[in-house]
Amino acid sequence: MVEQGKSPETQETPKSEFVAKLEKLWAKSNFVCVGLDSDYSQISDAATRLYTKPGLPEWKIYVFNKEIIDATHDLVCAYKPNIAFYEAEGIEGIEALKNTIDYVHETYPEIPVILDAKRGDTGDTNLGYVKAAFDELGADAVTVHPYLGKEALKPFLDRRDKGIFVLARTSNPGAGEFQDLRIDNLDYPEWGSRSLPLYQYVAKRVVDYWNENGNCGVVVGATYPEELAKVRKIVGDMPILIPGIGTQGGEVEATVKAGQDSRGWGMIINSSRGIIFASKGKDFAQAARKATENLRKEINKYR
Amino acid sequence: MVEQGKSPETQETPKSEFVAKLEKLWAKSNFVCVGLDSDYSQISDAATRLYTKPGLPEWKIYVFNKEIIDATHDLVCAYKPNIAFYEAEGIEGIEALKNTIDYVHETYPEIPVILDAKRGDTGDTNLGYVKAAFDELGADAVTVHPYLGKEALKPFLDRRDKGIFVLARTSNPGAGEFQDLRIDNLDYPEWGSRSLPLYQYVAKRVVDYWNENGNCGVVVGATYPEELAKVRKIVGDMPILIPGIGTQGGEVEATVKAGQDSRGWGMIINSSRGIIFASKGKDFAQAARKATENLRKEINKYR
Repeated sequence: MVEQGKSPETQETPKSEFVAKLEKLWAKSNFVCVGLDSDYSQISDAATRLYTKPGLPEWKIYVFNKEIIDATHDLVCAYKPNIAFYEAEGIEGIEALKNTIDYVHETYPEIPVILDAKRGDTGDTNLGYVKAAFDELGADAVTVHPYLGKEALKPFLDRRDKGIFVLARTSNPGAGEFQDLRIDNLDYPEWGSRSLPLYQYVAKRVVDYWNENGNCGVVVGATYPEELAKVRKIVGDMPILIPGIGTQGGEVEATVKAGQDSRGWGMIINSSRGIIFASKGKDFAQAARKATENLRKEINKYR
Repeated sequence: MVEQGKSPETQETPKSEFVAKLEKLWAKSNFVCVGLDSDYSQISDAATRLYTKPGLPEWKIYVFNKEIIDATHDLVCAYKPNIAFYEAEGIEGIEALKNTIDYVHETYPEIPVILDAKRGDTGDTNLGYVKAAFDELGADAVTVHPYLGKEALKPFLDRRDKGIFVLARTSNPGAGEFQDLRIDNLDYPEWGSRSLPLYQYVAKRVVDYWNENGNCGVVVGATYPEELAKVRKIVGDMPILIPGIGTQGGEVEATVKAGQDSRGWGMIINSSRGIIFASKGKDFAQAARKATENLRKEINKYR
């Protein structure tokens, strides 16, 4: 059933620019995502040393991020600033975030930036978040809450050029309160079972109904490798953003075995504090590189 | 079972400062919440006229909000800016939001401001959002997504002085995709039924387990009066934030009959575009007052 005037290739699920960027970096065995959760109060005094360096912008968070990015850019598949850490510092924090994202794009245009913002409102209102994340801040992808459903998230899903990561199973200890609830009487005859935990149902909806533009991914915490394996089975080769490695307790071997897709790809394995705060001394950037290298090596050992 | 050294009163569920503010305004028959969804592109040119008025800050959104607030302050129980509309304008938008909230607190300190931000991340990360919403922006209450569970939202719930509104049944047409899913095998023997739609289960968890500090509320759209009645039954006299009146299609009579608590209170009935964009002419503020007056009268007719 090929439409007239269209080649068979255009009938395939399209691929967003974001996913195309990711695949190029996965092909280089880069699966580490550095979480730029640059909590101002935790930033090394060593970054302060750079604070007044001539020619550099006048804020510590940006300078800290820049040093981390320069030290790790050849080892990663993405950077993921969590906007909460920037909003906490008010207007200056948001400026530091914008400048950080601009810096990645200008200096390392091959690396996508995932804005971890966990947004999700009703349809029209999401237009504001879409504008903020993609047009104002210039992120390549964003994380969203599933609770309001596909209809509400349409303004995000319509952005074919971007990546939209839907929370399925989050990394926190209490994630199961709602995410593990068992949903019965599902209208999914082809699924075999008509009963699923909510997080699997979310993943199934995303892969079956939300991904018309080939720009969707899901989020599953590394702290839950069994659940990760189940979601991987559901979503095929869709990208999975996997936070929770390192400080939060997720283990690399179990994560990679559960998380890789049919190509040995598909994983965006995020470590935040374990990398950016690996040292709080003058060597913070070198320590971040070392931690990223170690994680990269470890991941590739188990693929 | 009164603990030694404590009077019986201290054994009751405490009441947050936010709820105390609300109750004083409910006692004046004020149930309207004006949604300051001040979409820059929609703001009346009449506000531009005020833009350069000497002594006023240099931004149109703030001036527009200020005029609306001055025209409606004696008729409302809260203002609810949705942060998406401000984030869409970048740094300047956030500045306008901060100044709007400051203006309400300085000029009408009896009126609480609910920041509609629909946040929700893992525990530590929420500290950033808490700081942003309550300390940087100075809101009295905030809306949150339930998906990550109580454990993750603890930094919000720990703020005894504030209000935390948990999304239960949202006002959008596609809200049911996950919110109506039926959860079976619930561990709720006292509930009678062991099967509930997700939105009711969320409300039940909030009232039974999340509300230790007496600072919780839930969100249910006016577009779903049947669901609103069910949630009211579950949550008793807890505040319900009810968006979706007016432009979104919710009707006042059905909303009030379903939404009022045992005292004829408990409702924060939000109208945004129906009030703030009631006129796009020079009379935008007077038209906003008229629309607020009409809604207030209509609400009190059915209580």
